[in-house]
Amino acid sequence: MVQYQAALDRSFSALSDATRRAILLRLGRSEASVSELASGFDMTLTGLKKHVQILEDAGLIATKKVGRVRTCRLGPHKLDDVSKWMTTYKSMLEERLDHLEAFLERTKDKP
Amino acid sequence: MVQYQAALDRSFSALSDATRRAILLRLGRSEASVSELASGFDMTLTGLKKHVQILEDAGLIATKKVGRVRTCRLGPHKLDDVSKWMTTYKSMLEERLDHLEAFLERTKDKP
Repeated sequence: MVQYQAALDRSFSALSDATRRAILLRLGRSEASVSELASGFDMTLTGLKKHVQILEDAGLIATKKVGRVRTCRLGPHKLDDVSKWMTTYKSMLEERLDHLEAFLERTKDKP
Repeated sequence: MVQYQAALDRSFSALSDATRRAILLRLGRSEASVSELASGFDMTLTGLKKHVQILEDAGLIATKKVGRVRTCRLGPHKLDDVSKWMTTYKSMLEERLDHLEAFLERTKDKP
């Protein structure tokens, strides 16, 4: 459970930056080298590498270095844990709404 | 767009901590004072207040002080932006899978 929560912390944290979210969607189209990503996002190589590292640590992307070129592609982690948590949260909101509706139903027409 | 991305950054960041996620699900059941939350999560008041502040800044909870008691309840922000981003991400994954299937179909039985 602690491990699951730590992985979820990492997933949400990796997603808390607009550039990292954009990198994920970009790599969904095709793999790309770190340099290609840096020029596409108008960032320095150093700045981009930090984001790549965070995404790789979270398992969201995987990288491979051949010669001097590091290529990035989507990783094994597909955010199923985040989806699952969001489902739990939404069920909770719906349950609250159901309770509210039931309460309004019970109390209507009462003085 | 920049504002939307900044709000999304705040939402994902607020969710990147197990205690904050647990507070949200706890407040889904009923509102609670900061002290009740602190004792429920076995935390110091100071530690819990920091989490409450981050959740409140993200609009995920709202607090109200009456006398010396600050009460917390779910806020106006219902993570629709996070759901929407997750939907975009999942569509991207499905599209990739479709492309892969189409490729396998095209190349099967070829030498």
